[in-house]
Amino acid sequence: MLLSAAPISVALAEAPAATQAKATQGKTVKVELIAKEVEVVIDNEGHKAIGWTFNGQIPGPVIRATEGDTIEFTLKNDKANKNSHSIDMHAAKSDVMGDFAPIKPGESKTFSYVPEHAGVFFYHCGADPMIQHIARGMIGAIIIDPKDPNAMPKADREYILVEHQTFDNPEDVKGMMANNWQHDAFNAVPFQYDPVHDVNATQTLEAKPGERVRIYMVNAGPNEFSGFHPIAGIWDRVYPSGNPKNVMVGMQNYTVAPGDAATFDIISPKEGAYALVNHSMRAALSGAIAVLMFSDKADPTMGHGDKILPRP
Amino acid sequence: MLLSAAPISVALAEAPAATQAKATQGKTVKVELIAKEVEVVIDNEGHKAIGWTFNGQIPGPVIRATEGDTIEFTLKNDKANKNSHSIDMHAAKSDVMGDFAPIKPGESKTFSYVPEHAGVFFYHCGADPMIQHIARGMIGAIIIDPKDPNAMPKADREYILVEHQTFDNPEDVKGMMANNWQHDAFNAVPFQYDPVHDVNATQTLEAKPGERVRIYMVNAGPNEFSGFHPIAGIWDRVYPSGNPKNVMVGMQNYTVAPGDAATFDIISPKEGAYALVNHSMRAALSGAIAVLMFSDKADPTMGHGDKILPRP
Amino acid sequence: MLLSAAPISVALAEAPAATQAKATQGKTVKVELIAKEVEVVIDNEGHKAIGWTFNGQIPGPVIRATEGDTIEFTLKNDKANKNSHSIDMHAAKSDVMGDFAPIKPGESKTFSYVPEHAGVFFYHCGADPMIQHIARGMIGAIIIDPKDPNAMPKADREYILVEHQTFDNPEDVKGMMANNWQHDAFNAVPFQYDPVHDVNATQTLEAKPGERVRIYMVNAGPNEFSGFHPIAGIWDRVYPSGNPKNVMVGMQNYTVAPGDAATFDIISPKEGAYALVNHSMRAALSGAIAVLMFSDKADPTMGHGDKILPRP
Repeated sequence: MLLSAAPISVALAEAPAATQAKATQGKTVKVELIAKEVEVVIDNEGHKAIGWTFNGQIPGPVIRATEGDTIEFTLKNDKANKNSHSIDMHAAKSDVMGDFAPIKPGESKTFSYVPEHAGVFFYHCGADPMIQHIARGMIGAIIIDPKDPNAMPKADREYILVEHQTFDNPEDVKGMMANNWQHDAFNAVPFQYDPVHDVNATQTLEAKPGERVRIYMVNAGPNEFSGFHPIAGIWDRVYPSGNPKNVMVGMQNYTVAPGDAATFDIISPKEGAYALVNHSMRAALSGAIAVLMFSDKADPTMGHGDKILPRP
Repeated sequence: MLLSAAPISVALAEAPAATQAKATQGKTVKVELIAKEVEVVIDNEGHKAIGWTFNGQIPGPVIRATEGDTIEFTLKNDKANKNSHSIDMHAAKSDVMGDFAPIKPGESKTFSYVPEHAGVFFYHCGADPMIQHIARGMIGAIIIDPKDPNAMPKADREYILVEHQTFDNPEDVKGMMANNWQHDAFNAVPFQYDPVHDVNATQTLEAKPGERVRIYMVNAGPNEFSGFHPIAGIWDRVYPSGNPKNVMVGMQNYTVAPGDAATFDIISPKEGAYALVNHSMRAALSGAIAVLMFSDKADPTMGHGDKILPRP
Repeated sequence: MLLSAAPISVALAEAPAATQAKATQGKTVKVELIAKEVEVVIDNEGHKAIGWTFNGQIPGPVIRATEGDTIEFTLKNDKANKNSHSIDMHAAKSDVMGDFAPIKPGESKTFSYVPEHAGVFFYHCGADPMIQHIARGMIGAIIIDPKDPNAMPKADREYILVEHQTFDNPEDVKGMMANNWQHDAFNAVPFQYDPVHDVNATQTLEAKPGERVRIYMVNAGPNEFSGFHPIAGIWDRVYPSGNPKNVMVGMQNYTVAPGDAATFDIISPKEGAYALVNHSMRAALSGAIAVLMFSDKADPTMGHGDKILPRP
């Protein structure tokens, strides 16, 4: 899957990875996440429930940097919370029992790291019981852009979809371990971008014909695998783990494990609708469908800035 | 996974995909599928039940064309049917709400498309509830052969295996959503090609030692992933999505998501039996086993013509 | 995924695989496995239960050879056993109904094969009901090292992790078919290498910072897929099926199907702990977590010799 394997071997043999990263002299990116146990919207009708969140949002804020940058990270556990929380960032080489260890309400911790690999990565709370902290909403996406701007074709629009299963009774850890979920959603709200399956949905993903649309898909789980497929389209390219060095072409589907993520490029030659789904039908029909509408009149703000993760 | 990544990037940058496809001046392939709610054989003993089918067969007819051809497609919904039906072809760039939308009994629709990617693709009915239309049998395979005849090694025999789970009560959509399937089959009949596990099975897949046997494996789901493994053999090559540009070698197993498909090449140096399985044991032992028998006396008609999808 | 696809095509076209293998003049490796139904340790507290095993161990002995070697294999079914048993080795091209067929207590069989592909492979008992023979412990790993010593970067330490789900009632085949497992373990004992989640655990995997640690991960199933992820780290490389010709880089996770295996390289630049998990949370929290501790004081015997599969 390497475009050119030999140079990478050489680089690895000559310089430890940490040294390589420092040599890039990247910028410093400051990130602060605050664990908050607060009410969040859970469906297109606007019903609310107490979620466990980063910064009051599910998914949490998008973290974005470039290969070789330094991410200066701070986690705060709001003193109003009842539970310990932690951070587990898949883009970092860190320490489970150090930087990733839980902190109590009112506490905070800071650490830095230099992401070595471009890609899209899952972040989540890893405090016990981890299955519940993920299911209740402490999930998010990290994008590490490649240092080489030509490592991937330029995307015209970008969207982030974080898939996860949710449980009507968020205290039922035993039910979570038995995998008895009720809903599956992209970005927390089932059918959030699918007015076809839920009349209360108010938006779709949008793009123009001919545009290269890049989907960063994160599977938060906590349990299920996802077979990610674009109904009525074909993935032009799939990048496992979002790494430009891993490329697959002309794919109808790619398996994203729980705790995995991948980057998917798609282009439509004409106006019309695609539907991005977990093709495991009970997942799709429980909420894991997002309509991607191709139109010459596509909203120019969609798929840019904050609108790469459109919220309710 | 690209054999040569750069030329593809250039091609994509220079010409929209639709233009590229037209430039090939491929032939026109006419395909007509008729949705039929009729009795079908469901086991090796010959028991029947009402299936929802394309053309009275499960899987439906094999659709085959070459990259750059034009597929002129017609769907008819038989007026004797009770339900709306539709077509969702994974080889097409189309429109969920247009060409892929459901039609009522007695109606028909026609559209054309030029498949841009070689490979093996799933087709199915996408009418609500999609999980039921797939489970009851509206499933099939599309093969798009590469334009370049040397893109893959020449296959001596070919077989299509469409795996899916079935439910004893085909009206129980709630049970389908809860994933309570009873059987798992290749090409609709559990153990259809496995006289070892079902004495009523009357055939196996056949080939001669030394022959390159190409398996087009489609996972119809509706829910389960498949770990496709050849007992007593090793996949010489695996082509994710069947695309010659994606190649893996010397593989014991490859994960095919529900709604995905892949191409698997295998060769036996000697006489003997392989058993192709979904290595998730409860799937295999519920019917997803196909014996591939290597013998110098292999039936020369098997793996050619209509016998790439041997029916009961 | 091929590093260089063309030469392999040529080689395949010019010489049948069996001929190629013979030409290497590899050594002969004698392997004897004895099916034994005996008491085995099932948890970190030392509780025991009757397992079905190869040589009294779960997983069975590691089988290791080099591409082109001849493996002379003998299976004995101990006369004290109550059940027929068999061998199914994923590294071999063989015959389901011949070499892989079951033998009765007191019987033995011998056969030889030349493994054609480098990689890591699952072996297991295939006697009916196979789901039970796997669940009860007749599982193990085969490593076929590449003939070319430079085919992969040199590993400083190696570990084998065989994941499988276990059932409290080992007679309940119906429950196995319904997927009602209670535990998930690496190398038979849940949390065997995780003192964080089980105070009775007495060891972790160990390595020094900067060392390349190679994990051979085998998913025995019998049913579940595994999304294999290193908490606090990133896979430097992933080799699907362990084949050096299939390379993915900078991966946070890779899906290993039941009955599949893959090789994962990882390096930590500093001291600290990683946790290798099946990121499907109910699997991880049921036992599929192994701590990999990086320390300058790492035990020099760990990850070498017998300690590539540390036992209780």
